[in-house]
Amino acid sequence: MSLQELIYNMGQQARGAAKALRTAGREKKDAALRTMARLLDQRRQELIRENDKDLQGARKAGLSTAMIDRLTLSDAVIDAMIQGLEEVVGQPDPVGEITGMWKRPNGIVVGRMRIPLGVIGFIYESRPNVTVDAASLCLKSGNAVILKGGSEAINSNLALASILEHALSEAGLPPKAVQVVPSTDREAVRLLVQMEDHIDIIIPRGGEGLIRFVAENSKVPVLKHYKGVCHIYVDESADLQMAQEICFNAKVQRPGVCNAMETMLVHRAVATKFLPLMCERFRKAGVELRGCPRTLEVLPDLTRATEQDWYEEYLDLILAVKVVSSMEEAIDHIDKYGSNHTEAIVTSDYLRAHRFLAQIDSSVVLVNASTRFNDGGQLGLGAEIGINTSKLHAFGPMGLKELTTTKFVVLGNGQIRS
Amino acid sequence: MSLQELIYNMGQQARGAAKALRTAGREKKDAALRTMARLLDQRRQELIRENDKDLQGARKAGLSTAMIDRLTLSDAVIDAMIQGLEEVVGQPDPVGEITGMWKRPNGIVVGRMRIPLGVIGFIYESRPNVTVDAASLCLKSGNAVILKGGSEAINSNLALASILEHALSEAGLPPKAVQVVPSTDREAVRLLVQMEDHIDIIIPRGGEGLIRFVAENSKVPVLKHYKGVCHIYVDESADLQMAQEICFNAKVQRPGVCNAMETMLVHRAVATKFLPLMCERFRKAGVELRGCPRTLEVLPDLTRATEQDWYEEYLDLILAVKVVSSMEEAIDHIDKYGSNHTEAIVTSDYLRAHRFLAQIDSSVVLVNASTRFNDGGQLGLGAEIGINTSKLHAFGPMGLKELTTTKFVVLGNGQIRS
Repeated sequence: MSLQELIYNMGQQARGAAKALRTAGREKKDAALRTMARLLDQRRQELIRENDKDLQGARKAGLSTAMIDRLTLSDAVIDAMIQGLEEVVGQPDPVGEITGMWKRPNGIVVGRMRIPLGVIGFIYESRPNVTVDAASLCLKSGNAVILKGGSEAINSNLALASILEHALSEAGLPPKAVQVVPSTDREAVRLLVQMEDHIDIIIPRGGEGLIRFVAENSKVPVLKHYKGVCHIYVDESADLQMAQEICFNAKVQRPGVCNAMETMLVHRAVATKFLPLMCERFRKAGVELRGCPRTLEVLPDLTRATEQDWYEEYLDLILAVKVVSSMEEAIDHIDKYGSNHTEAIVTSDYLRAHRFLAQIDSSVVLVNASTRFNDGGQLGLGAEIGINTSKLHAFGPMGLKELTTTKFVVLGNGQIRS
Repeated sequence: MSLQELIYNMGQQARGAAKALRTAGREKKDAALRTMARLLDQRRQELIRENDKDLQGARKAGLSTAMIDRLTLSDAVIDAMIQGLEEVVGQPDPVGEITGMWKRPNGIVVGRMRIPLGVIGFIYESRPNVTVDAASLCLKSGNAVILKGGSEAINSNLALASILEHALSEAGLPPKAVQVVPSTDREAVRLLVQMEDHIDIIIPRGGEGLIRFVAENSKVPVLKHYKGVCHIYVDESADLQMAQEICFNAKVQRPGVCNAMETMLVHRAVATKFLPLMCERFRKAGVELRGCPRTLEVLPDLTRATEQDWYEEYLDLILAVKVVSSMEEAIDHIDKYGSNHTEAIVTSDYLRAHRFLAQIDSSVVLVNASTRFNDGGQLGLGAEIGINTSKLHAFGPMGLKELTTTKFVVLGNGQIRS
C-alpha cells in the first residue's frame, strides 16, 4: 500500500468511527479512558522497551539532552499520563448539551445542541505523552482523531496506539477512533492536511516551522498559533511591588513556553523608579535585557534592542524592555508587534484597566495577573489541546468544549413557512 | 495602481478601520446605520440611474429575465434595504457581551468577552441589495468589510458604496469600514482571498462554482456552504396529513433556495398510503418526481431516479423520492448523500424523534416542521449573512453573534503562577 493509500484509508476509517462516536454516551467513553489508564499501567515494560528504541535512535542522531529528556517515557511520565486520563474522566461530557432554547411566535421551539466536530488531525513533535493527552480529549468530546507525532517518537507512539486501540475495543467503541500514523515521512503530514473530505479540523502543535508547513499546505481549517510574543504593560498607576512580582513570574518561572513574557512595556512616569529594581532582579536570575533608547537612559549598560527584538519570541531568559509615554503607545506597540496571544496590564486605575481589556485584541487579556495563566487548566477549562490565536471557532486555549460545535434543533408540531 | 496594489491597500485600510471599530459603541454604529437608511432614501434617483447602467449592460449581455430581475434596484427594493437597516438597528450589539464569568481558586476572575472577528471579505453574485445587508451586519458586529459583488452590478454597488462611506463619516466612524472592490476582474477575488494578513474570514455567497473557486484559492478561513441537499424523512408513525403539508411547503413554497427539500424519504410501511396522495398534489403543482425502484412499485409511471439524483440540488420543481425500510436506512442515506445543511423528520414517535435529532449531522435538524425554517430570521437570530455547513466557528445560519468571537479576560489582584 502506498503512503497515499495508507493515509486515505486512515481518513475513511476515522470518518466511520466518528459516525459511531456521535452518539456514544459518556459511560462508554469514560470506560474506554479508564481502560486506557489501566493498560498503560499494566504494559509499562512494553512501553519503556519501545521507548528505548526511540531513545537509542535519538542518541545516534545526536539529539540534544533536552530533546532526549522530552522523548523519555519514564515511570513518572507514565504516571502523569494515567493521571491525565483520570482527570479527563472527571470532566463533564460536552456532547448533547443544549446551550440555549427559545420559542418562536409560530410555536416552533429552537435550540442549539452541542455536537462533536467529527475527525481531528493532530500533528505534533517529540513528547509521546501528548499522544495520550490529545487522544483522551478528542475521544471525550466525541471526535475521532488521527495523530501524527514526531518521527523520533514513532516506536513509542505505535506502542501507545496499540494500547489505546485495545481500550476502545474493550469499551465497545470503534478502535479506529484513535489512530497513529505509522510513518515517519513528512509527506504523510502533507497528505493528511489535504484530506478535506475526511478531516474536519487540523491542530498542529510544535515549532513555528512545523506550524507554517501545516498552514501553508492545508486544505482543512487549521486551529493554531505561530508564537506567543506576550507583553506586560506596567502602568504609571501600578503597584510597583505587584508589577515586579508579576513581571518576574511571567518571564522567569518557565521561560520556554508560549505564555511567558517577551516584552515589558513601562510607563515613563514610573520608569526611573521601577526599572532599576526590576532589572536588578532580572539580572540576578540570569535574564539578558535589551532596552529601547529611553530604557538605556535609565540603565545605560543594557544592550540596545533592535527593531527585530520587538517581534521576537525568545523562549529563553531574554527580555525586551521599552519605555512608553502612554497606555495608548503601549497598545499601539502591542497591535504592531504582538501575536494576539496574551497581554497583561499592571495598574491601579479602574478606567485604564477597563480600556485595556476592551482594546487589546488578544486571546487572553489580564489585569494584575501573570501572562502565565493563559492555559486551559489555569483558566478553568480543564486540560487543553492547544491555544488558537486566529479568531475563528475558538480564540485562546481549547479544552473539551472547544472541540465541539453546535447544531440547531427545531421542535415543531406541523409548522410550515408562509 | 495595479489591481494587486489596489486590493492590498483596501486590506490595509480595512485593518485600520477594524481597529477603530473594535471599541465603537452601539450609539455610533446605529447612527451610521440610520444615516445609511436616510441617504438611501434621499439618493434614490442617483441609485436608480446607476443601476440602469448595469441593467443596460445586462440586457446587452443577454442575461436571463430572472437575472435582470435580481439585478434591478426598484423603489420597492430600496424600501426593503431601508427596512433591513432599521431591523439591524433594532438588534442588540453583540460586542462586549460577557458570555460567562467564573472565579478560580487563586482568586482570579475569568470571563469570556464577545469581540468582533476583525475584517470580513464578503464575495457574492448579482443582487445589489445584498451589499447593504452584508455591510450593515458586519458594521453592527464591529467588523470592517470588503465587498466584492458580481461584475454585472458594479455601477449599482459603487453608488451604494459611496452612500455607505458617507454615512460612516457622518457618524464619526472610519469610512473605510465598508469598502466595495471597484473592479469587475475575477482576479480581484483571487487576490482578496490570499490576503491572510488583512482579512480574518471570507464569506462567499452564490453558486457552487463561485464558492469552489473561493474555497480552492483562499488562504483565509472560509465560512460557506456548497449546496443544500435537504431531506425530509416521513416516518411510519407520521401524521400523514401533517407530512403532506410539510413536504409540500418544503418543496413548493420557494423551490430555488438552499433550504428547499430535494429528496423525500418515506418509510415503506406508509408508502402505499402516503405516496399516491402526496405525489398527486406535487404533480398538480408542477413538480417532476424521480423515484427509487420501490417508489416505482407504488407509482409505476414516475421517472426512475439515477444514482446522481440523490446528490442533486435541483433548486427547481423536481424531487427525488425514496422508500426506506427503517429510520436507520434514512439516516444512512442522508449521511451518504446529504450536505449537512437541513434535515427534517415527520413522526409521532417520541423516541425516534429523539434519535433523529441526535444522529443527524446537519446544521439544522427539525422534527415536524418544514426545512424552509433554516434561516437566521426564522430561527430568531435576526438577519443572516449566510449559512455555514462546515462545523467550524458557526454551524448553520450566521447572524450578528456568529460574526464575533470571544476572548478571555482575567481580573486579578497580583496573582502569579506557582
